[in-house]
Order: sequence, then C-alpha cells, then structure tokens
Amino acid sequence: MTAPGTASISAIPDPVAIRARVDEALAAFVREKAGGGAARSLPTEVVDTLEGFLFAGGKRIRPVLCVLGWLAAGGSPEVPPPVVRAAASLELFHASVLIHDDIIDDSDTRRDHPTVHRSLADRHRDRRDPDRFGVNAAIVLGDLTMVWAAELLHTAQLSASRLGGALAVLDSMRADVMYGQYLDLLATACPTEDLERAMEIVRYKTVSYTCERPLHLGAVLADADPRVLAALTAYARPLGEAFQLRDDQIGVYGDPASSGKSNLEDLREGKHTALVALALENARPADASRLRVLLGDPELDEDQAEICRDILTATALPQVEDMITVRWEQAKRALLDAPFPPEVCAALRRIADAVVLRAV
Amino acid sequence: MTAPGTASISAIPDPVAIRARVDEALAAFVREKAGGGAARSLPTEVVDTLEGFLFAGGKRIRPVLCVLGWLAAGGSPEVPPPVVRAAASLELFHASVLIHDDIIDDSDTRRDHPTVHRSLADRHRDRRDPDRFGVNAAIVLGDLTMVWAAELLHTAQLSASRLGGALAVLDSMRADVMYGQYLDLLATACPTEDLERAMEIVRYKTVSYTCERPLHLGAVLADADPRVLAALTAYARPLGEAFQLRDDQIGVYGDPASSGKSNLEDLREGKHTALVALALENARPADASRLRVLLGDPELDEDQAEICRDILTATALPQVEDMITVRWEQAKRALLDAPFPPEVCAALRRIADAVVLRAV
Repeated sequence: MTAPGTASISAIPDPVAIRARVDEALAAFVREKAGGGAARSLPTEVVDTLEGFLFAGGKRIRPVLCVLGWLAAGGSPEVPPPVVRAAASLELFHASVLIHDDIIDDSDTRRDHPTVHRSLADRHRDRRDPDRFGVNAAIVLGDLTMVWAAELLHTAQLSASRLGGALAVLDSMRADVMYGQYLDLLATACPTEDLERAMEIVRYKTVSYTCERPLHLGAVLADADPRVLAALTAYARPLGEAFQLRDDQIGVYGDPASSGKSNLEDLREGKHTALVALALENARPADASRLRVLLGDPELDEDQAEICRDILTATALPQVEDMITVRWEQAKRALLDAPFPPEVCAALRRIADAVVLRAV
Repeated sequence: MTAPGTASISAIPDPVAIRARVDEALAAFVREKAGGGAARSLPTEVVDTLEGFLFAGGKRIRPVLCVLGWLAAGGSPEVPPPVVRAAASLELFHASVLIHDDIIDDSDTRRDHPTVHRSLADRHRDRRDPDRFGVNAAIVLGDLTMVWAAELLHTAQLSASRLGGALAVLDSMRADVMYGQYLDLLATACPTEDLERAMEIVRYKTVSYTCERPLHLGAVLADADPRVLAALTAYARPLGEAFQLRDDQIGVYGDPASSGKSNLEDLREGKHTALVALALENARPADASRLRVLLGDPELDEDQAEICRDILTATALPQVEDMITVRWEQAKRALLDAPFPPEVCAALRRIADAVVLRAV
C-alpha cells in the first residue's frame, strides 16, 4: 500500500537496489554464455573463472552512476531492463580492465581472492610452466570479457538511435582509460615532483572512466539535453579527482583487511601519484632522495614502507587532504543548481560523501 | 572512356585495389588519433607504434573477404566508404589480436619487424625492467587497438539497422577467436593424437574469424538474404580449414625468409595441430615418444627440429596435403552454384587458389 498522494511518485532506487539489478543482469548474461559454451563443448573454466571474479566483490560504482545519470536526465525510476543491461556492461568492461591490470601490476590478490592469472595458474599446476599459462590465459580471458561487455550492450534492446549515442560515449570512455593506463605505466617507477602529470593520469583513468562517462552513458539513454550532460560533468570532474586522491592514499596507508588490497604494492611499483609528486616537491633533499630510492623497489619491506609513509605524511598528506576536501565541496556545490530531480541530487551527494569519507 | 555497352557494368575491385582503400582508411583513422592525442599532449609512441605495426605488412585477408562478401550480396562495385571503413575495422581488430598473441607466444618478430612488446621494450631500455614494461605496455596498446577497432566501425556512417547487423556478426566473430585462442593455449605443450580437438581450434580461430565472419560482415552490410549467407558459409568453412592446415605446415616447414616468421616457434611452443595429432596417431611408438618429448621444449634446437620434421613428414604430411586438397576442392565446388555475380565467384576462386598454393 502506498500513502495517498505519493502513488504517482516512485522513489528512485537506492544504490543497493541498483547493484542487485545489475548483478542479476550480469548473472543472467554469464549463465547464457555458460550454456552456449557447454553446447559447443567449450572449456567451462572460462566462464567459471569470470563468474568467480565478477561476484567476489566490487562496489559497482560505474553501473550505479550510470543509473543515476539516467535518473538525473529524467529517466523513469522503474529503470527499464535495457538501461540496467547497459549499466551492467560497464561492470563487465571494468572486469576486463582489472584482469589485465592485475597482470600488469603482478598482483596476487584482488577482492580478497587470487587474481585471475594466479587462479588460472593454480588450476593448471601440472603444466610445464603454470605461471606463464596463467598470465597468457588471463590475457585472453580479459580480451573475451571486453568482447562480451560490448555484446551485453549491443543486445540490450536499446533503440538504434540510443545505441548510437551510447557507443559514442563508450568509445571515448574506453580510449580514455587505456590512455590513462599507458600514462600510468610510463610514470610508474619514475616518480617526479610533477603534480600536473599525476593529475592527468587521474583525469583519464578515474574522472572520465569511473565518474563522468558512466553518468553520461545513463543520461544519453534518457535523451539528456546538453545542459544535463554539462551539469553531470561539473559534478563528476571534482568527484573523480577526489575519488582517486583518496584511493591513492588508501593504496599507501590503507588497512588491507578493509581495503582488500596490499598497502605495499603501490610503493613497490613506484606509482606516480599526487601524494608522491607533492612529497618530492616539498621534502628536504635528503628525504626526497630516500623516497626516490625506495619507491619502485620491488623488494621494499615493511620497515622501508614505514619510512616512505613517514615522509609522505610529513610533506604531502595534509595538502592531499585539502585537495580532496576542495573537490568534495566543489562536487556537492555543482549539485546545488543542477537540473536534476531532487532525490537524484541527494543520491549523488551521498555518493560524494561515501567516496570521500571511506576509511583509509 | 569506356567501350559502349560496358558502361553500366563496373568491374569489381581486385584485392590490390581493396587493400589500397583499406590502408587509406586505416591511415586516415590513425592520423586522426595521432592528431587528437597531440592536442591532449598524449605520448606519441602509442600511435607511432601501432602505425608501424599496421603498415609493416599483412595480407589484409579479412578486409578483402569482407568487401568480397559485400559484392557477393550484390553491393555496389564502387564500394562506398562506410563499407571500406567496416572492412578496415576488421584489420584493426586483428592487429589487437596479434599484439596480444605475440606476447602470449613470446615472439620476437612479426612481419620481419620486432613485435610490439619487443619494440616498446627497446624504446625504454633505460627503465628498471624494460622487458616487463614492453609486455605491460603492449597489453594496454592491444586493448586500446581493440577499442579503436570498434570505434572505427561505429563511426563508419553506417545506417542504424546495418550497424546493428554488423555488430551481431562481430560479437560472434570476436568471441569465437578468443575461445579459439583459449583452446589453443590449453592444447599447447600437451599435444595429443586428438585430430578433432585440433580441428576445433581451427574452426574457431580460422574458419569463423578469418573467413566466414568477414564475408558475412560485408554481406550483411549489403542486406544479404539468408541464401547468400549460407552460400558464403559453404565456401568459407572448407577454405578456412585449408588455410589453417597450410599455415600449420608453414609454421613447421616454412622458409622464414618468405613467411616472415620462425619455423621453430610452433615446435618449441608445442602447438597442437592436425599435423601433430596425425603424427602421434600414426607414428611407431618410439617415434611418437620422441615427438612427445621434443614438442614443447623451449630449448629445441635446429637438429631436434629436423628430427620432428622427419617424423611429421613420414607419418602425417601426406594426409594433411590430402585434407587440404579435399577442402580446396570443396570450397571451389561451393562456388559453382552460389548466387553471387560471376566476377565475385572468380575472385573467391583465386583467393582459394592463393591460400592453398602458397609456398611452404
């Protein structure tokens, strides 16, 4: 029963409800692929491994933002299945990026489980070179996942014109994340005091890929006018920067038990982040030299990591905290005069808070 | 000037002319990407490396078959730019597959040039671990190339309904090649007498990906009826098998100077091919055991390769030659009552000959 007078206004779905529908769409797609593969006697480990990875965790931030973009542009709170499928395709694409990213970073665990290349190596321990097999199979599985992500969108039953609009957003988003990955690789293991360079990586990998384009995708599916797209951008850009600045901080100071990832890996890889750039800029020459030697050392131990953390805390952390706060406020201010339904503004505000107030 | 009476019949373009137009479309797309990257201060090595790889060689078999599929279905011999662009997108997708395939096979050269991961490692010799950088950068560059291949198709100015048809063909083609790669990986280094397993890899990686789907893509763009698609399949299936059987033979017996690739690599990797399956089935137990020991040995030298070749020649090569001939004839027979314009049948017949009569 709905109270009189509210019957015509459906409440917008909250992130938990969106996630549940996205997961349902992902599960249905993966089951369909498992069935098709079985019919053609394809190895079941392909779909099994992908399914295990997809459902081991993940915040589903991109699909949630996609659906909020749809709602921001006036799309129905019922969120029709094609929109849910489009949102789910972002998550599948993201899985493909993570599978390859874990190979690149030589990571052992993700979401508290072995990474895909490690789990495929474990499954094939009796082979001549199981570790190489694991990496190779994960390269192919990542590619297949990228191909399937596209198929999930193509078969979402979107109208032809909406599919066209969606593809344009996605083409730009997918190229941005790859350029971001490339810039990240170039900068890794050669950290510098170049803050602008660190922020450029953030703009490709996080602002565009994680925030702005997912919001735009949903909005385009609701035939958003340019004013809505611009307002989403005004919110997404500072939010994406805040998101990544916090993420970088978690990568160095985070509690692995709650973040699900190592807090040594970024230091050992020598990731070029705003935190590192500011420290190299601000630290006394002796500390800057120590940082340069330690960052990117694959053998870095816990004591050396503590030295790095102390220098970063003394020379850069407060400034990064300020940068996060400025961007957090900017994102929320952008919502004040955004032409979105008020419940959508409230939901976007809660997301901004959740991003920034995450435990480090 | 055209002779009277022939003015209305344009000759269909030959493969050389198709290749030239495809290369032009690829070059224009890559130039556009270089310009866009420069405007955003992105590293030029990304586009430079891809461009070098694309234009170092390649038969362009998939785009040529795509255009012939278009012509088979009655498409205009003028071949409009959107169809050329769609054909070119197959080549760009193929580049992405090869970039990753060369990492998987740990190959040094392709098309007589260093592979992408080797050339990126060379460009970054001063880094802490240039070889690892090369592999990582090539994983990302392969991903970006796959993304761009999709964009090249999406922006080909196809009508919405034709784009929809094209995407369905491509979704199936792209998943097939990835499944084929996965099956190939599983079978590599554990060759068996299982001929059916070897032919299954061929059906995914070569029949579907290299022949049937490229032909279908072009045909779908010309609104082909199901009879045309079925006739293309009847030609493509045996042709694709013949193509791969010849390719496997070249991989073992080929002259690297003319094939552009090593004739040791497949043996060292222990590729599971029809040639190997038949040899393990037919050879005397002592020879079969020797083969099992030698195939997949990464240190295999030229003398040991010669031993493998001798066993393969004595026990399997004639049968593989027969298999090729049977399929070659089957493909050409399929053209006899195909509902294609006669010049298209002639062109497809020449391609079948070229595939089979390649120098080993």
